[in-house]
Amino acid sequence: MTMPASAPDHPVLREIPIGISATGTRRETDSMGAIDVPADRYWGAQTQRSLQHFSIGNDRMPKRVYHAYGYVKKAAALVNAAAGRLEDWRAQAIVRAADETIAGKLDAHYPLYVWQTGSGTQSNMNVNEVLSNRAIQLLGGELGSKSPVHPNDHVNMGQSSNDTFPTAMHIATVLELDEVLLPQAHALADAIDAKAQAWMDVVKTGRTHLQDATPLTVGQEWSGYVEQMRDALALVAASRAGLYKLAAGGTAVGTGLNAPEGFSAEIAGQIAALTGKPFVTAPNKFAAQGSLDAMVAAMAAVRGLAVALMKIANDMRWLASGPRCGLGELLLPANEPGSSIMPGKVNPTQCEAMVMVCIQVIGEDNAVAFAGAQGNFELNAMRPIIINNTLHAIRVLGDACEKFRTYSVAGTELNRKRIDETVNQSLMLVTALSPVIGYDLASKIAHRANDEGTTLREAALAEGVPAERFDAVCDPKTMTGHGLAGA
Amino acid sequence: MTMPASAPDHPVLREIPIGISATGTRRETDSMGAIDVPADRYWGAQTQRSLQHFSIGNDRMPKRVYHAYGYVKKAAALVNAAAGRLEDWRAQAIVRAADETIAGKLDAHYPLYVWQTGSGTQSNMNVNEVLSNRAIQLLGGELGSKSPVHPNDHVNMGQSSNDTFPTAMHIATVLELDEVLLPQAHALADAIDAKAQAWMDVVKTGRTHLQDATPLTVGQEWSGYVEQMRDALALVAASRAGLYKLAAGGTAVGTGLNAPEGFSAEIAGQIAALTGKPFVTAPNKFAAQGSLDAMVAAMAAVRGLAVALMKIANDMRWLASGPRCGLGELLLPANEPGSSIMPGKVNPTQCEAMVMVCIQVIGEDNAVAFAGAQGNFELNAMRPIIINNTLHAIRVLGDACEKFRTYSVAGTELNRKRIDETVNQSLMLVTALSPVIGYDLASKIAHRANDEGTTLREAALAEGVPAERFDAVCDPKTMTGHGLAGA
Amino acid sequence: MTMPASAPDHPVLREIPIGISATGTRRETDSMGAIDVPADRYWGAQTQRSLQHFSIGNDRMPKRVYHAYGYVKKAAALVNAAAGRLEDWRAQAIVRAADETIAGKLDAHYPLYVWQTGSGTQSNMNVNEVLSNRAIQLLGGELGSKSPVHPNDHVNMGQSSNDTFPTAMHIATVLELDEVLLPQAHALADAIDAKAQAWMDVVKTGRTHLQDATPLTVGQEWSGYVEQMRDALALVAASRAGLYKLAAGGTAVGTGLNAPEGFSAEIAGQIAALTGKPFVTAPNKFAAQGSLDAMVAAMAAVRGLAVALMKIANDMRWLASGPRCGLGELLLPANEPGSSIMPGKVNPTQCEAMVMVCIQVIGEDNAVAFAGAQGNFELNAMRPIIINNTLHAIRVLGDACEKFRTYSVAGTELNRKRIDETVNQSLMLVTALSPVIGYDLASKIAHRANDEGTTLREAALAEGVPAERFDAVCDPKTMTGHGLAGA
Amino acid sequence: MTMPASAPDHPVLREIPIGISATGTRRETDSMGAIDVPADRYWGAQTQRSLQHFSIGNDRMPKRVYHAYGYVKKAAALVNAAAGRLEDWRAQAIVRAADETIAGKLDAHYPLYVWQTGSGTQSNMNVNEVLSNRAIQLLGGELGSKSPVHPNDHVNMGQSSNDTFPTAMHIATVLELDEVLLPQAHALADAIDAKAQAWMDVVKTGRTHLQDATPLTVGQEWSGYVEQMRDALALVAASRAGLYKLAAGGTAVGTGLNAPEGFSAEIAGQIAALTGKPFVTAPNKFAAQGSLDAMVAAMAAVRGLAVALMKIANDMRWLASGPRCGLGELLLPANEPGSSIMPGKVNPTQCEAMVMVCIQVIGEDNAVAFAGAQGNFELNAMRPIIINNTLHAIRVLGDACEKFRTYSVAGTELNRKRIDETVNQSLMLVTALSPVIGYDLASKIAHRANDEGTTLREAALAEGVPAERFDAVCDPKTMTGHGLAGA
Repeated sequence: MTMPASAPDHPVLREIPIGISATGTRRETDSMGAIDVPADRYWGAQTQRSLQHFSIGNDRMPKRVYHAYGYVKKAAALVNAAAGRLEDWRAQAIVRAADETIAGKLDAHYPLYVWQTGSGTQSNMNVNEVLSNRAIQLLGGELGSKSPVHPNDHVNMGQSSNDTFPTAMHIATVLELDEVLLPQAHALADAIDAKAQAWMDVVKTGRTHLQDATPLTVGQEWSGYVEQMRDALALVAASRAGLYKLAAGGTAVGTGLNAPEGFSAEIAGQIAALTGKPFVTAPNKFAAQGSLDAMVAAMAAVRGLAVALMKIANDMRWLASGPRCGLGELLLPANEPGSSIMPGKVNPTQCEAMVMVCIQVIGEDNAVAFAGAQGNFELNAMRPIIINNTLHAIRVLGDACEKFRTYSVAGTELNRKRIDETVNQSLMLVTALSPVIGYDLASKIAHRANDEGTTLREAALAEGVPAERFDAVCDPKTMTGHGLAGA
Repeated sequence: MTMPASAPDHPVLREIPIGISATGTRRETDSMGAIDVPADRYWGAQTQRSLQHFSIGNDRMPKRVYHAYGYVKKAAALVNAAAGRLEDWRAQAIVRAADETIAGKLDAHYPLYVWQTGSGTQSNMNVNEVLSNRAIQLLGGELGSKSPVHPNDHVNMGQSSNDTFPTAMHIATVLELDEVLLPQAHALADAIDAKAQAWMDVVKTGRTHLQDATPLTVGQEWSGYVEQMRDALALVAASRAGLYKLAAGGTAVGTGLNAPEGFSAEIAGQIAALTGKPFVTAPNKFAAQGSLDAMVAAMAAVRGLAVALMKIANDMRWLASGPRCGLGELLLPANEPGSSIMPGKVNPTQCEAMVMVCIQVIGEDNAVAFAGAQGNFELNAMRPIIINNTLHAIRVLGDACEKFRTYSVAGTELNRKRIDETVNQSLMLVTALSPVIGYDLASKIAHRANDEGTTLREAALAEGVPAERFDAVCDPKTMTGHGLAGA
Repeated sequence: MTMPASAPDHPVLREIPIGISATGTRRETDSMGAIDVPADRYWGAQTQRSLQHFSIGNDRMPKRVYHAYGYVKKAAALVNAAAGRLEDWRAQAIVRAADETIAGKLDAHYPLYVWQTGSGTQSNMNVNEVLSNRAIQLLGGELGSKSPVHPNDHVNMGQSSNDTFPTAMHIATVLELDEVLLPQAHALADAIDAKAQAWMDVVKTGRTHLQDATPLTVGQEWSGYVEQMRDALALVAASRAGLYKLAAGGTAVGTGLNAPEGFSAEIAGQIAALTGKPFVTAPNKFAAQGSLDAMVAAMAAVRGLAVALMKIANDMRWLASGPRCGLGELLLPANEPGSSIMPGKVNPTQCEAMVMVCIQVIGEDNAVAFAGAQGNFELNAMRPIIINNTLHAIRVLGDACEKFRTYSVAGTELNRKRIDETVNQSLMLVTALSPVIGYDLASKIAHRANDEGTTLREAALAEGVPAERFDAVCDPKTMTGHGLAGA
Repeated sequence: MTMPASAPDHPVLREIPIGISATGTRRETDSMGAIDVPADRYWGAQTQRSLQHFSIGNDRMPKRVYHAYGYVKKAAALVNAAAGRLEDWRAQAIVRAADETIAGKLDAHYPLYVWQTGSGTQSNMNVNEVLSNRAIQLLGGELGSKSPVHPNDHVNMGQSSNDTFPTAMHIATVLELDEVLLPQAHALADAIDAKAQAWMDVVKTGRTHLQDATPLTVGQEWSGYVEQMRDALALVAASRAGLYKLAAGGTAVGTGLNAPEGFSAEIAGQIAALTGKPFVTAPNKFAAQGSLDAMVAAMAAVRGLAVALMKIANDMRWLASGPRCGLGELLLPANEPGSSIMPGKVNPTQCEAMVMVCIQVIGEDNAVAFAGAQGNFELNAMRPIIINNTLHAIRVLGDACEKFRTYSVAGTELNRKRIDETVNQSLMLVTALSPVIGYDLASKIAHRANDEGTTLREAALAEGVPAERFDAVCDPKTMTGHGLAGA
């Protein structure tokens, strides 16, 4: 009736490369009993049970979650050691294994499926077991013995899946946003901005309701894309504020049972130091564990970017439609043959991929919101579906930005001939006359030109507008207001 | 070939009450020709055409949109008059009619359906026509004559539907948030907070995965609800930042054609002054008119609140399940008989209404995101569906908060007998022993109690835990950590 | 301890017109006590309580639900009377009031909100109360006395909300499908078909990926729309099979408690007779009351039609884009001025309305699926949200079909000049050469024409294709295969 | 200017095992020029380009699509050979390579990402290239030479991506449904049915609105689950009707250009023969290629099953809540330790996994519907996202059924003690009295028992109900109606 004795002498941390040179199986145990695991893997009984019970599809918990968990376990060990609750040598062994996890070196030992227990306990135990066995190995112990480093008593000390899994979710999401989506999306916005600047003086036909409208410049149009993206990215960046609040320290139900006083703040501070991100302890652990609202909000922000990008990608493929029977204003790079049957066909495939990715993100956001609403009492047991969809959305949207920029935006050129032709044909140049001659007469002129198939100028003159007045007012370039203040 | 002459003398603004004492129909005209409208209505030809062409279902453009449009038209008239572009007497007449619109006094003259042109032009013209005719009436002119106040040339001066409709959308959404959702949801959060404070010392069984877990207090549990709501509300409030940016001044395609220099900033400033909200001109009108991203983001924030409220309402109805065969911890007020066949049945109907409202909001958010992604070129022509769903979501969620607070939360009581009984039965009190005797032995004790149907204490003693130790450690009250720092 | 006595003599059914000539309030009672209701309304205490507790937004339970409920109550009364459980004179009074409900004559007495108890009990009680009081009135009794026709004991005899509300949902949905959506959507398909037939020989450029592709005829293109619609409509029609299965007779939890033997089949048969639709009793009442799966499936079928219609409406507005700077193949009817600022602008507004309606339907389907998944035990308490969204979707989609047909499809014309010009410009005519000269050379020709800006014919001849061969093979008309078998 | 000459003599098909013993790279070409591909892979230039341009996330086109494509290519070769358009020896080589593809032996040669061209052309070309090179290898030719089997001219003969990719989608979906979802879901329904039969006489408390209701038997409750599943599965099975219609033969835009007369019907017939499924040619190829409506409908049917399963899984985990402070009626198998911190905790993890899978399916259905609505003209360019989500949904739902059956349903036991206790406590047994004493008195009795905390019997007697009458009427077993007809 005492704690399992730790080794009396301090075992020494040895330099043993990652890997277990064994074949066949090894017996591991948990409270359910014994079970065989592959002898060359660090995981233990609970991981093995999960593998057997949850082999649903081929969706695996994203490795990013385990890397994030590495920070949690390392931070916990450091905090526990500093407080004297965990012997230094034990902590050092755990830290070593955690560092290997963070670096992705133990990825092969984190095999679990997404569709598992809703708390993520099995993935937490996977980490606990791997770190335990790796630490045991480093300390010269026997794999599976749980001694001298026990997966629950030592690696999981002061923790629960209920508080650490959402902590790892937040860390993983912040890192994925910072390392994948934000830089790639900003690079895309910058590339679009460069085009906007380059084409700021090229006057083109505006279109509203898909119908010819008053002119603007290509650069103005693209500046709108830039603004959309940067506004959306500002919201994505801002959504991290909620993610910075960590549940760690709440343990089983948010009360912090079995976590010592001050543990919450200390582990959050340690995670902040290790990651270089401004993580803090969540002010209310019951909310932090019973909900995943900050995840839902972050996903919504990512979706906001998808909404903007879908519009942009659609515009580009429509403006590039043709080459001869479409709008034909843009010339997208021809990266590959477009058709297996139509020779010479080139398609806006990067735009299509982007549009599909955006729809996928919107669908995944829908699943995340649904799951986010399904919490009960002290736990939202929909964590795996939420983290999987969120990390996936961030990743594919970030990658799509990179491809879209590299293989589509960067090489896009204008079809100046087409742009110049159409801008002068638009009947909506008549709008500039409206403040001069009134809406009703202006409208009559536009209808006349349309009905008679004449130019707008011909119709205007036929309705009594002096030629010099028409020419002075209905100048597309002037109408864009570009270079003028106040627009 | 000059502007339609205004009346040479300044017509005088008369005090004429709202209403047209005429029967039958009046002839109104637009560029498509003449059409009959009801003689007792202020609207004109374009409104009438829309009524005929778009009577789809019975969904009407929310009146809030027209009230918001009143601010836009009033602000435009004031700005135009101040710059000398619009005669003061014309401006005053428009302002008077706009004020009546803002106050809801002309609601009966805004009959259009939601499902209309995607730009909202028909609703803008509805406003232009009503303000024109009401101003004409006030100035002693002939209804339908468009003189001396023309719907396009004067009421719509310097404006387009393309810039003013999203402006009205933003204004309407901010007002609905500020007047309905934010106060009602905060009041609900406060009511929950009061309960949390009152019940802060009542120890109960925690539940994770729906299974008995370690104890917490009722007040702790409810404090989580408060935190969820306030966090969500902070994001709703923050989402207004995007809504404060107004498209007005961009006119047809964002270039500001036909709007004088400085108009954008001036009309935004005027709207800010009139509404008392910090509206500013959008820095990029191409984004402001080609997208509705700020609306999508605001709707996402509202959805975030729905996600939180669904969890809260679900918790409450589950905790109130029973009265005899459920969890039975809460006693919700019995507001009405629950069953037409089962006498005496009382149901958690306010919770059910709230849950349904939350699902509706999530579905409407899905539609808004879809529509938000469907912009093309210089216009997102999905405005009516977006504003209708957003205002609806804000309204029903706000109202549901008010009802839920008044008829459910305020009158909720605890079933202390049930709460006290169950907290002592939970096998998960064993968790407190874990740091003392180790996870494995603690687990053995819990399984033994479960298998043998004994109390946890009995099983612990049978496994060798001294009674005094058990009693010292496994105290539910202590386990909640309430009153201790660091949780 | 006996049943409340019925009047000893048979009260006579009087001819009293609908309406209560009273002012102020009337006292009504239920198991919660007494409450005042408007004196000129038939409803009773439970309706009044619901009105007060659930005034959320302005969404009212669709009147169609009450009309459907009229059939349920009438059928129950007839079945109960035939079995001798209900006196004929009572049954006749109930039947009279039910008939008035079916005919919509009592609509003003069904005021309840959508957001109420999840079982729909309050709407069932609204019907019970109105039928009770109206029957009492017809029999010369005192309103509110529940005698001689009691809302629960007589009107609700053998029933529960739990079985009758889903029954009314199924009836309402079938009627709305049969009377609104199916006829209007078929009429639209027929109108499109007529155009397809008329334009079967007009050769045009095909487009895939928005890019020029091989030719087809306008009629072929439109025949695809017809097929899409009719396929979708076949699934909508088929979805009624699930709706024909009625829960009535399952009473409180599906066991049929308090409903006599055979009641299920008899009431379903009676409803079938009254409505002329092939309703039958559901084979398993636990599924019929614990789920709303047939509703979810019907909504999915409606969504399928929306998916098809969105594609069709999008095609039409894109093909009509222009008039001078777009694809310009279709000339849609100009129903109204399109812009408040751009004179003479005409927009594809019916297409936009249709697209928005389709997105709304997809969003509503999402809410219905979510709600459909939220049943618990013997009840899915998400009925109001499901019936409201489903009936709304059916209605607006049906109406949109009618408007789209009348104001857009019927008046659509071809721009033959534009169609003829572009078909000959498409480089993809080269595809016909591919089987003759091989994909690689054909591809080379297309690229050459594109790069050099020449016609395809010029490029082909330059690559050594004999002119007569080119002309024989690359004939757009022949390439459409129209008139040939086998396509 | 003639077709590339085929080898004059018939090359002989050799027995060469799969694999290319080469290292480094091989030069392949397409109309864009030359590109290096890994020397040990069969794919060609277009596959390589796609790999470079579309490495977005790690989502790969499901292998099932390629297996299905194997049937398409094999069928085309057989049809073309039978008609004399393709030499037998060429056809045989293609058929051999196609058979290897069908069998999954060439999976490593189909590496492409989901996020690619929206038509699936790159995956079609991947198949064309692999079959070309494998056939060339089998015939002793030079890899990359496109001779004597050309990827476009021979493997793709009479085909386009536009008609074959949706054909492969339909085949893949039917096979996945038939081989994964339908059998696994039916097995689950059967397992639930077995429990329903076994527990048909166990009386328990019914629950509506989560509140105690009238009794039913456990078997009745579970029979509802069975009915829900089988109804949903019938719709899934029926959704195959749309999938059986194949686009093959429509080629580029649906006209069948370059496909010989009769090709459509012949290739569909051949595919039917090869797969043993009743595939036929789609009656209208413009619909079959311009839309993916049959896929959307099939996905909706799968979602319908998810909606049913979510309810079932939720019921089970709620009924198993406890062990001491919940509903506690079911005892789910304890497959693994449930908590890293709470010793001895067991959670309903299979139910949670199922619920998450169901939410995922609903979210994926939302994405599929959105994408399905985004077709334009002769192509819906959202194919990859639709097939990927659909196949994923089918797979994970099928696998989840298998796990849920094996590890949860099969081992579920009843907690008879708890069930028996609660059934007798339910105040709703009063409902049986209602037809005897009237709803109002019955209601009074229930309220009295609740207020006074007495048994229902005590309250009934206190209200004057004779004891023998109460006992005769309020018998839970009788109230379930089990064994009686008519329910």
